[in-house]
Amino acid sequence: MPAKQQVESNTSPLEKLQNMLEQDLTLMDQHMYQRMNQRAPLISDITRRLIKSGGKRLRPMLTMASAYHYGYKGNRHIDLAACVEFIHTATLLHDDVVDESSERRGQSTANTIWGNKPPILVGDFLFTQAFELMVCDGCLNVLGVLSSAATKITEGEVLQLATQNNFSTTQQDYWTIIASKTAALFEAALHVGAIIGGGSKEDQKAFSTYGYHLGCIFQLTDDLLDYCGTTHTLGKNIGDDFYEGKVTLPVLLAYQSGREDEQKFWENCFTAHTEKTELDFARAISLIRKYSVQENIESMISDTEKKALQALDTLGESPYKYILYTLPEYCRSRGT
Amino acid sequence: MPAKQQVESNTSPLEKLQNMLEQDLTLMDQHMYQRMNQRAPLISDITRRLIKSGGKRLRPMLTMASAYHYGYKGNRHIDLAACVEFIHTATLLHDDVVDESSERRGQSTANTIWGNKPPILVGDFLFTQAFELMVCDGCLNVLGVLSSAATKITEGEVLQLATQNNFSTTQQDYWTIIASKTAALFEAALHVGAIIGGGSKEDQKAFSTYGYHLGCIFQLTDDLLDYCGTTHTLGKNIGDDFYEGKVTLPVLLAYQSGREDEQKFWENCFTAHTEKTELDFARAISLIRKYSVQENIESMISDTEKKALQALDTLGESPYKYILYTLPEYCRSRGT
Repeated sequence: MPAKQQVESNTSPLEKLQNMLEQDLTLMDQHMYQRMNQRAPLISDITRRLIKSGGKRLRPMLTMASAYHYGYKGNRHIDLAACVEFIHTATLLHDDVVDESSERRGQSTANTIWGNKPPILVGDFLFTQAFELMVCDGCLNVLGVLSSAATKITEGEVLQLATQNNFSTTQQDYWTIIASKTAALFEAALHVGAIIGGGSKEDQKAFSTYGYHLGCIFQLTDDLLDYCGTTHTLGKNIGDDFYEGKVTLPVLLAYQSGREDEQKFWENCFTAHTEKTELDFARAISLIRKYSVQENIESMISDTEKKALQALDTLGESPYKYILYTLPEYCRSRGT
Repeated sequence: MPAKQQVESNTSPLEKLQNMLEQDLTLMDQHMYQRMNQRAPLISDITRRLIKSGGKRLRPMLTMASAYHYGYKGNRHIDLAACVEFIHTATLLHDDVVDESSERRGQSTANTIWGNKPPILVGDFLFTQAFELMVCDGCLNVLGVLSSAATKITEGEVLQLATQNNFSTTQQDYWTIIASKTAALFEAALHVGAIIGGGSKEDQKAFSTYGYHLGCIFQLTDDLLDYCGTTHTLGKNIGDDFYEGKVTLPVLLAYQSGREDEQKFWENCFTAHTEKTELDFARAISLIRKYSVQENIESMISDTEKKALQALDTLGESPYKYILYTLPEYCRSRGT
């Protein structure tokens, strides 16, 4: 195999997208920086750090990809991708305050550096920036999709908080939460790109459906990695969900399969005022292994992946569609 | 004077507005309740408490008043007034978390009851609800006014945080902060009403200008009352600004007029890690009295009031304009 092909075959779909969209991503970053630099120093400091720390830019790339699937030639996708990234960044800032997280993308969180107050207010500012960008874009259809996604995300966050340390959480609650807090933005990011690209209603629906399932795969994998991954692959501390009392799918499945004494263990751990220890976390992992929770969730992820790919099947061909086709597999395998 | 007239003359402009807009305010409240009741229990609990605790509904009434000034007959003003109130409520929730406030409108704050996490996330949710309402309204002009106001408000909050315990704050910084965090929503509330009422560009500008000055009067008075009012008139704890280290106008003026030892006192008090005592607060009040800060600020408020009324002069006559004419005087005298 020639050297170039070898390199290409080692390139992940995410990197391929990043390469194809490099110029647009640079423009988007510049645009985001510019908007922030004209603002109060606290705003530019916090957001510059967030933009620099990178993240994968997966969500804004989805907007660009679905627009380019139709050979889109304008520049609305830059601002709308920035808008998607602003919404995502705002939720990260608030998430980290609410979860009292100390690490994100392998770096200290804003709340660790500045305390809680600046990230709360700068998060609010980023939300409003996202809306200003949408309004400047001037398309009510796009505004509807993104504002309704923002509502879903924030409602998902509240729902998640309500299930914290709460063992009456059901699998259905879990799916509602991940559909809202994570999948809604994937869905909207792709939907918006398809709108500006001029996709038909059916195509827009296909992109949304794909985005929904991709978002679910992303979150299912993230929640699984919190018990079965490493700090390196996760980019944040392993066991965070456990210590924060988040009743995620691995916990629910291990609980439901458990003997009475094991269920008691989970219930004791997931009580608001219990300080969880490393020993507790070790037992949690061993129970998750004992009941083949990883295999079970991986099978759910496979089903979800099939649905994502099915949604793409109805669309015409393009290099972007091809990469989207390979993304679910990449998302699910990123930690293993 | 007949009994009815006597009663009327004792009625504040705020109460007059509330009476004239009673049906609309009820509709708005119902609408807000309905939207919240279909949501996660935490959302409906927190927002129900906030809506019930009342507040004066001043901002949404401004939207209704400027629309009715033109004899507006539609029902867009209900949703847009709700939108203004949602933005206001979201900022209150986040403000109270950031300021660690324990009391608002004479009641315990949401963060006192639920801790910080729910008010942060429910505040986010209310922001997104405001945007959904605007998008449903479907007018890009209105969307532009309100989304730009939301940006200003959040930027003002960040700026204010940056001046906390910071004695290099200037009077100009102070004016920028109150223009953003408070006046911007008054301005937008009136502007939006004028848009849907069909007011000319000049009229829209006149309403915005009036709103800007009214908002400044509101905040100047609020900041003055924190040193010269009572907990009863303020509806929250006296001295909150002082203990939180907010460098407001009373502090700036007393500082600038002070002798060297007095300036030293202010600088010592407004240092991030100083625990301020009741004795400090007593000395702060006595310095504010010594340098006639109250009279000085009241004179600034009078100037601002004149500008507010001048802006109204260019508008045609209506019962609503008449009440708006009397509002600045009411706002400035509410604590004395």
